Amino acid sequence: MNGEPPVGEGLLGEFDLIDRFFSRPATGRTDVILGVGDDAAVMRLPPDTELVAAVDTLVAGRHFPPDCAPRSIGHRALAVNLSDLAAMGATPAWATLALTLPRADAGWLEDFSAGLLDLAQMHGVALVGGDTTAGPLTISLQILGHVATGTALRRGGARAGDVLVVTGFLGDSGAGLALATGRLAAHDPAAAAAVVNRFDYPTPRVEFGAAARGVASAAMDISDGLVGDLPKLAGAGGLAAHVDVGRLPLSAALTSLVSLPQAREWALAAGDDYELLLAVAPQRLDDLTSAARRLALNLAVIGELRPGTGVHWTHDGVPFAAPSHGFDHFR
Amino acid sequence: MNGEPPVGEGLLGEFDLIDRFFSRPATGRTDVILGVGDDAAVMRLPPDTELVAAVDTLVAGRHFPPDCAPRSIGHRALAVNLSDLAAMGATPAWATLALTLPRADAGWLEDFSAGLLDLAQMHGVALVGGDTTAGPLTISLQILGHVATGTALRRGGARAGDVLVVTGFLGDSGAGLALATGRLAAHDPAAAAAVVNRFDYPTPRVEFGAAARGVASAAMDISDGLVGDLPKLAGAGGLAAHVDVGRLPLSAALTSLVSLPQAREWALAAGDDYELLLAVAPQRLDDLTSAARRLALNLAVIGELRPGTGVHWTHDGVPFAAPSHGFDHFR
Repeated sequence: MNGEPPVGEGLLGEFDLIDRFFSRPATGRTDVILGVGDDAAVMRLPPDTELVAAVDTLVAGRHFPPDCAPRSIGHRALAVNLSDLAAMGATPAWATLALTLPRADAGWLEDFSAGLLDLAQMHGVALVGGDTTAGPLTISLQILGHVATGTALRRGGARAGDVLVVTGFLGDSGAGLALATGRLAAHDPAAAAAVVNRFDYPTPRVEFGAAARGVASAAMDISDGLVGDLPKLAGAGGLAAHVDVGRLPLSAALTSLVSLPQAREWALAAGDDYELLLAVAPQRLDDLTSAARRLALNLAVIGELRPGTGVHWTHDGVPFAAPSHGFDHFR
Repeated sequence: MNGEPPVGEGLLGEFDLIDRFFSRPATGRTDVILGVGDDAAVMRLPPDTELVAAVDTLVAGRHFPPDCAPRSIGHRALAVNLSDLAAMGATPAWATLALTLPRADAGWLEDFSAGLLDLAQMHGVALVGGDTTAGPLTISLQILGHVATGTALRRGGARAGDVLVVTGFLGDSGAGLALATGRLAAHDPAAAAAVVNRFDYPTPRVEFGAAARGVASAAMDISDGLVGDLPKLAGAGGLAAHVDVGRLPLSAALTSLVSLPQAREWALAAGDDYELLLAVAPQRLDDLTSAARRLALNLAVIGELRPGTGVHWTHDGVPFAAPSHGFDHFR
């Protein structure tokens, strides 16, 4: 290590890339008092709100294939964090980025920052701070946002009798990853492109999460697949989940690419879909459905919560053995 | 990668260490509405304050020697971020941790978390969120805090005629690292232990930073050595810095270990001291000195800011060629 130039600084000093690629004055937020360039950032929270914070790390070869397009990596780094805020019903506002890179490659940084900043702009998020270091490719992004005092959606708010719903379609990302890594052959190019795009550019359900505040009783995002995440929501509420596997929302693209059993396996266990899983009282379901319709978002009822523990999967009324968590997950 | 167990989850599933080591209910903060365990954390900011956020990443072999004690790594991960908040005059409150680890080793995690949480407890900081992934050892910590509206100390607030001061002593960490990595022989065990401790367990000047609000005109923390950091403060204020190298504060431990020229080189360029560099109007210097005295903290006047640009180093009234930035820095 000694004898090398000071690397953290070298990335900036040699190429001046970081400033160049991450200083896009995108959002025009007036609540950023002091952004990148001081020891810390200073922001103003709206009145009568609480601060909401989440952090997620992406490691090359764990959370995305090593040859993943840098634009996709940049998008994903923010999307997975926006998805966490969506699950709270919170409004994203600011982000800080800790980027560890083997080397400062202008083309890579241009695409990575474009993926990140395009999504940031779409959600009005300002990048207010960051730290760039040399090392194996690792991206930690922290998202900061706010929510009206006392209204954050929690995992543990569900009650017995609540209906379980999920947004969008599940399993597309599993198929996308299988295609991207050559484990699945594409006989339908349009469908293949659609699911690969779903893996590369997940859509965080920020607007729907905000609309679900005061309507849903509990929410979380589905990052590890239903088999990984549903037990957490049911457990946090001290309830048993009963799910009909036949009701899992599967996209036309997915079912045109693989058999129904394969599609269901991915919907249950592949992860990376970044849809929302919510519990809602039956009498509030219509409100949630209306909100989804306004956003042109699919919303599927997949089961319900009852007194008890665990997750009980059925199909056509008979017990169903769900696949193990993460069975073909990239991680 | 395929065929491996799902690693991110595996760290938790197999060992359940993360929860065990990071769930110390340390601070009893009542402003944490929702901490670890949901999709995001929810916190309440005090009235009439602004949010202050910073992030710093430590990479093994870059920011600390690969064989560094895990307790020191945990301490450092928080200390470098607290130091950023100290430089703003902000009050630290909450932190999130993104921890990438090659494997979940109970002993390592126990020591790492103890180093981090002991320092957190000392400053009343609650760890409100985190993310653990498998990969090369990388630690990103984000610190969140607050400051009374409009009072944050900035880098760019200095005026011509302001005096330049630094807290504590400079260069100890450089000597500590030289000893720890075998580049320096210790003939004075007590002094050696003192400077190694300064490298391993830097003390963020949080209380002094808070006391300097409304008194100092500009502040930043010294993480890269004066030769790296002073140009940033002078440049942000559009001023020239004039520093007398003979006035650099050197500890008795440092000067007992190495020659005066060597001590000065480390004070200027070795970095990792995490002291504060401040600019203060001459008529407010006494207030700053009193605050330092109350905190039993050394405070040294090293020069002043004048109209112009650049940093002008002198020694005994004649020009002095400062060492290159980071010349023997570990990074």
